[in-house]
Amino acid sequence: MATFVMVNGIPGNMGRLVAETCVARGLELVPFSLTGEMIVENEAEVAGRKIILLKPSNREALIGDILKKYSGLICIDYTHPTAVNDNATFYVNHKIPFVMGTTGGDREALIKLVAEANHPSVIAPNMSKQIVAFQTMIEYLATEFPTAFDGYQLSVVESHQKTKADTSGTARAVVQSFQKMGLDFDDSRIEMVRDEKNQLERMHVPAPYLGGHAFHTYSLDSADGTVHFEFQHNICGRSVYAEGSVDAVNFLAEQIAKGNGKQFNMMDVLRSGKMR
Amino acid sequence: MATFVMVNGIPGNMGRLVAETCVARGLELVPFSLTGEMIVENEAEVAGRKIILLKPSNREALIGDILKKYSGLICIDYTHPTAVNDNATFYVNHKIPFVMGTTGGDREALIKLVAEANHPSVIAPNMSKQIVAFQTMIEYLATEFPTAFDGYQLSVVESHQKTKADTSGTARAVVQSFQKMGLDFDDSRIEMVRDEKNQLERMHVPAPYLGGHAFHTYSLDSADGTVHFEFQHNICGRSVYAEGSVDAVNFLAEQIAKGNGKQFNMMDVLRSGKMR
Repeated sequence: MATFVMVNGIPGNMGRLVAETCVARGLELVPFSLTGEMIVENEAEVAGRKIILLKPSNREALIGDILKKYSGLICIDYTHPTAVNDNATFYVNHKIPFVMGTTGGDREALIKLVAEANHPSVIAPNMSKQIVAFQTMIEYLATEFPTAFDGYQLSVVESHQKTKADTSGTARAVVQSFQKMGLDFDDSRIEMVRDEKNQLERMHVPAPYLGGHAFHTYSLDSADGTVHFEFQHNICGRSVYAEGSVDAVNFLAEQIAKGNGKQFNMMDVLRSGKMR
Repeated sequence: MATFVMVNGIPGNMGRLVAETCVARGLELVPFSLTGEMIVENEAEVAGRKIILLKPSNREALIGDILKKYSGLICIDYTHPTAVNDNATFYVNHKIPFVMGTTGGDREALIKLVAEANHPSVIAPNMSKQIVAFQTMIEYLATEFPTAFDGYQLSVVESHQKTKADTSGTARAVVQSFQKMGLDFDDSRIEMVRDEKNQLERMHVPAPYLGGHAFHTYSLDSADGTVHFEFQHNICGRSVYAEGSVDAVNFLAEQIAKGNGKQFNMMDVLRSGKMR
């Protein structure tokens, strides 16, 4: 039997994309979605299906029947940073396993809530398994060979759509590993590229993805300038995150079926080898 | 007391550079060097010192006195692929610990010889600790997350001085790790850049290093083209290998002093955290 999945955050773009990916990958999309109170519409059309939008003011009244009808339902959350903790409380209260794709919110409180409830979930700041693998690999380098790049100079440049105001969280996480190796580098030195001219000409972002991309380049240069290492991860659009979210749902469903339902992260999903 | 080191392969360029690096890093360079029979000179000047060149025809007669005078002597070998096995036999017969920086020869026979004699040595196809760390990191990725890049397309391009006829051994070793991940790639698809125009314009090799460099780029692209990972290691000149060779000597001297003299590789040196 296919897993029932409720994608929250419709009619947002990411919610739509994830819902479409769920359908394309054979999950059973239920016709409901949690959304924000300020959303005017009461329904949306996604992947050829009519989706009823549930708001904080009416979701408590309706969720009981939904859970009865769609037994084993798993939620994927791509809502809004301000909704993360409130939604997680809702999932825990109603015993709905979930994949948290939304970033932001009070992450510490989120992890604590879920851990105390021993609630089946996948929580990760980045749903791309390739990025998670890359981060883990760099952390391994830092842990195993802390002196390998002694005296080297680190530089980091990242490019995202111009609407992104803050520095890349992934870049900051990777920099933490390099800092462990004793490289003298402060987050404030992560160069942010947000203007389209430089995105096109310097970062080589394809024009169709100026509005949605995540390009990162880390460089390590020896003091005498004769040795240069470079690592890039360049993501156009958001389909890689949508695919990773579906991987996470499949992983979580399998763990629950085995009686292993608890808090996981994308590393667990990745190690399970189940990801596409 | 400083370690005595005999650098073999003088008057070759790499032998010279390694000898200079030994002196710069405080090792005691002994005034002898094994070289080939066809070398016309009987001595060379390196790092302001006169070095007497020993050839296969006279080295057996002279080595006894040298070893008596320079107790604890360690050899670094940067000679020639055709001399690798013969020199190793010489080191083992005379119980001279050595660092083998020369590539080529019959590596299997080399490893076997040294293992059977339990002879103190560092043998590695690449003396750059950064490259060794990189290779180990990619192997870790392949082992830990074998499905992370399923369906991705690998491409590899390497540039070396135009006199290098064969494909980069480092590129082939790294490709082996990617093959473990199921990526469909054959060594014959490693692109070799040997013409200076492309080296300058495409690979961005600095002009002074056209005659001696090792640039490598590995790219991983998702099937739909939206995700691109890239890893580069670009080395100009050979000082990084000379530094690594001195690290290896220091490591080996330390191990011998501790009574741990046996066969090591650069990974052992790297893990010891003693490298610069």
